Amino acid sequence: MSLPAANLDPTFRITRSSHVVLSVKDLAASKQFYGEVLGLILTAEDDSTLYFRGVEEACHHSLVLRKGSKPACARIGMRMFTETDLDKGKAYFAAQGCETAWVDVAHQGRTLHVTDPVGTPLEFCATMPVQPRMITQFRALRGGCALRLDHYQILTPEVRKAAEFYMGMGFRLTEYIAPAGTFDLRGVFLQRKGNPHDIVFFNGTGPRLHHFAFLAPEVHHLLHACDVAGELGYGFDVERGPGRHGPGHALFVYFRDPDGHRVELFNTHYQVMDIENEPAGWDPADHKVSFPWGMPARESWYLEATDFEGADVREPRVKPTPLTLEKFLPQRTAGN
Amino acid sequence: MSLPAANLDPTFRITRSSHVVLSVKDLAASKQFYGEVLGLILTAEDDSTLYFRGVEEACHHSLVLRKGSKPACARIGMRMFTETDLDKGKAYFAAQGCETAWVDVAHQGRTLHVTDPVGTPLEFCATMPVQPRMITQFRALRGGCALRLDHYQILTPEVRKAAEFYMGMGFRLTEYIAPAGTFDLRGVFLQRKGNPHDIVFFNGTGPRLHHFAFLAPEVHHLLHACDVAGELGYGFDVERGPGRHGPGHALFVYFRDPDGHRVELFNTHYQVMDIENEPAGWDPADHKVSFPWGMPARESWYLEATDFEGADVREPRVKPTPLTLEKFLPQRTAGN
Amino acid sequence: MSLPAANLDPTFRITRSSHVVLSVKDLAASKQFYGEVLGLILTAEDDSTLYFRGVEEACHHSLVLRKGSKPACARIGMRMFTETDLDKGKAYFAAQGCETAWVDVAHQGRTLHVTDPVGTPLEFCATMPVQPRMITQFRALRGGCALRLDHYQILTPEVRKAAEFYMGMGFRLTEYIAPAGTFDLRGVFLQRKGNPHDIVFFNGTGPRLHHFAFLAPEVHHLLHACDVAGELGYGFDVERGPGRHGPGHALFVYFRDPDGHRVELFNTHYQVMDIENEPAGWDPADHKVSFPWGMPARESWYLEATDFEGADVREPRVKPTPLTLEKFLPQRTAGN
Amino acid sequence: MSLPAANLDPTFRITRSSHVVLSVKDLAASKQFYGEVLGLILTAEDDSTLYFRGVEEACHHSLVLRKGSKPACARIGMRMFTETDLDKGKAYFAAQGCETAWVDVAHQGRTLHVTDPVGTPLEFCATMPVQPRMITQFRALRGGCALRLDHYQILTPEVRKAAEFYMGMGFRLTEYIAPAGTFDLRGVFLQRKGNPHDIVFFNGTGPRLHHFAFLAPEVHHLLHACDVAGELGYGFDVERGPGRHGPGHALFVYFRDPDGHRVELFNTHYQVMDIENEPAGWDPADHKVSFPWGMPARESWYLEATDFEGADVREPRVKPTPLTLEKFLPQRTAGN
Repeated sequence: MSLPAANLDPTFRITRSSHVVLSVKDLAASKQFYGEVLGLILTAEDDSTLYFRGVEEACHHSLVLRKGSKPACARIGMRMFTETDLDKGKAYFAAQGCETAWVDVAHQGRTLHVTDPVGTPLEFCATMPVQPRMITQFRALRGGCALRLDHYQILTPEVRKAAEFYMGMGFRLTEYIAPAGTFDLRGVFLQRKGNPHDIVFFNGTGPRLHHFAFLAPEVHHLLHACDVAGELGYGFDVERGPGRHGPGHALFVYFRDPDGHRVELFNTHYQVMDIENEPAGWDPADHKVSFPWGMPARESWYLEATDFEGADVREPRVKPTPLTLEKFLPQRTAGN
Repeated sequence: MSLPAANLDPTFRITRSSHVVLSVKDLAASKQFYGEVLGLILTAEDDSTLYFRGVEEACHHSLVLRKGSKPACARIGMRMFTETDLDKGKAYFAAQGCETAWVDVAHQGRTLHVTDPVGTPLEFCATMPVQPRMITQFRALRGGCALRLDHYQILTPEVRKAAEFYMGMGFRLTEYIAPAGTFDLRGVFLQRKGNPHDIVFFNGTGPRLHHFAFLAPEVHHLLHACDVAGELGYGFDVERGPGRHGPGHALFVYFRDPDGHRVELFNTHYQVMDIENEPAGWDPADHKVSFPWGMPARESWYLEATDFEGADVREPRVKPTPLTLEKFLPQRTAGN
Repeated sequence: MSLPAANLDPTFRITRSSHVVLSVKDLAASKQFYGEVLGLILTAEDDSTLYFRGVEEACHHSLVLRKGSKPACARIGMRMFTETDLDKGKAYFAAQGCETAWVDVAHQGRTLHVTDPVGTPLEFCATMPVQPRMITQFRALRGGCALRLDHYQILTPEVRKAAEFYMGMGFRLTEYIAPAGTFDLRGVFLQRKGNPHDIVFFNGTGPRLHHFAFLAPEVHHLLHACDVAGELGYGFDVERGPGRHGPGHALFVYFRDPDGHRVELFNTHYQVMDIENEPAGWDPADHKVSFPWGMPARESWYLEATDFEGADVREPRVKPTPLTLEKFLPQRTAGN
Repeated sequence: MSLPAANLDPTFRITRSSHVVLSVKDLAASKQFYGEVLGLILTAEDDSTLYFRGVEEACHHSLVLRKGSKPACARIGMRMFTETDLDKGKAYFAAQGCETAWVDVAHQGRTLHVTDPVGTPLEFCATMPVQPRMITQFRALRGGCALRLDHYQILTPEVRKAAEFYMGMGFRLTEYIAPAGTFDLRGVFLQRKGNPHDIVFFNGTGPRLHHFAFLAPEVHHLLHACDVAGELGYGFDVERGPGRHGPGHALFVYFRDPDGHRVELFNTHYQVMDIENEPAGWDPADHKVSFPWGMPARESWYLEATDFEGADVREPRVKPTPLTLEKFLPQRTAGN
């Protein structure tokens, strides 16, 4: 087995991950959490929906929160470059045997619903109403000053299948996780926009949304987000970090929102555009890559995730056996 | 007159600005300056040439310094996505009446030389030998921790002509400068890689290289670069900043290197990918955009630039009349 | 001539610089400037007075702004350790021939007015009503997040006389400015609280208040203060910096407030407590110390200052001849 | 019971915590750890001893590492202001029934050994040979850029007795920990130098040295120290943090050095000088103060500490029952 190959000449152009649609139980709590802790800008709201965008985003929304009876993710969204790309994409997805449908979605251009081969519900559009970028409205900056949506991480029992599908339509593989010396893929980092990932698939019970991630400007913004979280009573919901990712080198912090949805805030990413950039592989057992310093993530970080509405969830063939904090603590005495 | 239109379906794919080739008089001085102040990584050197790359770059070089009798810029480099794009690009440039030539360049794949219609000497390649990204080699980080080459700024008497040429091959206009209510272009910010600029053209005596720019991770890296510059005796060569760019909101500092070449170090950039993002225009007389706080740039920043080897330099039709620091000081009493 | 000697066993204990009392013409403008740009906390206000304190300060005020017909400084304040120290201080000052008076001042304990031998109007108290420290109220942080008042700088024609007086009552000299090889004092940095200065005297027309200074936590807070200043229309009032102080190594920015009063925001200070720490001298002509990188301060920074109410201002014997930005620009071509 | 009272007029003047003397098994490992991770400056070394100082310190050493067969702390050091204070201090300690002795110590002025009433071995001196402050030698900065020694934390079964002794000689209490509504002291923060602590005593098996702490300039320095620790193979020795202290608001990270000695790196501290500043009390069971966000410290952080050479260690009357990470994890599901 080898790594799947990326199609360098796809017939349609996906440009980036763009927006996530979640159900939440209490709009007021979510409004405070995303506005104050993450620092997102509220573009619009009504009785049942909140539309947030990042501080630098000119698009109408990158996070849609709908009042619902239980937490779930309705869809994750991506952008196509032009309307023509949307049409070509629809044809391509249909040829691949995916369910597709044109739908009307508020505050978005013509929108295409697609379910990918591992069951992830996607939606694509080429435009949204333009909003002012708020990045030079310095007094409007709050909490983590989340700049823009960057990527999603999905749990799936079918990592290779996901990689093949996404790479077949032009996504490139930047990093992958597999036991040393093998291509038995346990995690794949896939991108269209020229940085390490737009969408990541990890081996696990799924399809489920592990997290979505916003970029923050600097390290101190991550810490300010934690401080505001603590001040507002969300101190226990700083689930992991601040810490350092391994090969990607970003600093991160993971929060659980009031419904348990996980959102990552992280800083700077490297650029991956050149054709000679080979994917970087790492062994899941190599803790120097997984957590270069400090302690591993707690079990909840590995196992808990958000269900997709209506998706059938299946168990993976190989059960993940991460070194969780719960396993680590009894094994390891600090300072010895 | 209106803004030129971007070709959204170019026949070949330029991906990004990639490397600049300069002549310098004293390799040892340049080696210290770029290694210690900017924090670039030295990939290779011989008696006549230094090859530097940014801390996160996997490409062989983004800055090439050749020993020469006088300071000049030989070429600015860009990447094509694949070898096929290079071939298609050559045909396109030839059809546009540009001089083109295949050349052998050390440490680069097949390389195409092209002179653009305003006289800028370009070179394109699709690959370079891969080098390790150094971003997690924390003890190797120095000075400004320059991550990667981001963009060039060129002075030219023919701003509109440049904009039309680059937009015709797929560059998109993110910002432009023109007197209020007009499209009399005095500056254009053009991009391929999804952030505000790969190449910028400003009205002025040219073609000349005004500056090239590296991205730094955080604000404190910019300040550390200044501190190291001062420590090494380059304190007067901190020509402008640290300061805040207007619409682009980046923090910047401009250095003059030991030969007078100007290099910018700046932090975070916004993302520009969506088709509905219209170019943002601003009036050159609007100082709140040009310098949101502090004082304007000194005259040298506006007028001095690096000659391109062998290029004929011409004067602009409309002479720039920026509000220089020299004009500003007598006009304005602080605190009044 | 030599340096004055510090009295290591003064009969009373001054602990620190504590508060400054200014006249301002427009309380609303000042309220916005100090609250939004500096980030001070408003403790109390009435029709004629604003009381501000730093984000971490537990004292009632460190900045008092009184509505007045013209900008001036009424007094600069210092703390004595105990009420007993206040009494001993009064006796000491009287024996030195200084005017002294007990006065009632709102929101302060028993207060002693003293005019020092170079004409600076001082006030001393030992207590103020306690206020909550706001440093962990993260959502209340604004602009430069000014933590606490740190020091004053005074212009005077009598630098040595000032040094002798303050050192005679226990202030220690940390740095001084004098032409190389001499003790012809042009500037003295004097401290009680264990960092480089509580009060600084510089040679110039005086007594006048050159600036007062607040400590900020980190570099990015200084820049955020500048950004907010620009957003609020105070962009021209960022008079100097951000830049690096020489021996003290702090990063600084100087603002002119809406009345032209100058306030410095700076970060980290070194500790000076040990008896073996000798004063560090530097030559006013040594630009590597005065401005380690970038350009010198503009003339206004050197010459303009706030009058003390009712003080007679005199010219210095040796007129200062600093290398101002106005002199520097024609002399020096950047990059050469 | 009430809080002990501070003596505001002590007969001698201790100025600050100044240096710690440790035994280590491998000088080379310690040299790398403190030089590269903490960023301390090596003042001097010989076959059996390393002398380090902080980046801004002008004193000869703040950390002395002696080769020994097992890890231990020989003494913690404090400064007296003058030689006269040393003499008065000796008389005072003798009158209190403490063992005292004059000793010769390399690179220190006249040195007084004293054992405090809870068994902590102290040493006092008034001077050390002066070294250059390195804070403006920007290229010499490494890792966490540790500026200066700030404080010690000691475990003792006799917290109140320690508080009474130190407050009796002029230390002031800034914060204390006691069950709500009581003065049953479980922790006391005591200071001489005007910030929250020079020495802290916590209830526990002791006397033992829990940690010593260095101040770092900014948050990013703490993270860089962690990154360098990870790079050098000390990733597991980042025992706690980065995190936020409660009332003191500092950001912290705790490392275990190669011998298991614990060293804290933290940023900004508030100033405590005014007589009206009352001690702030907090309940050990109030987790919002103990860890405002994230997870509690692991058990090792609470229980493990460095023995003092020759000291008899005793158990506390009330065994500490902190909410350790080990207890916390099973109790608490993140996101719920």
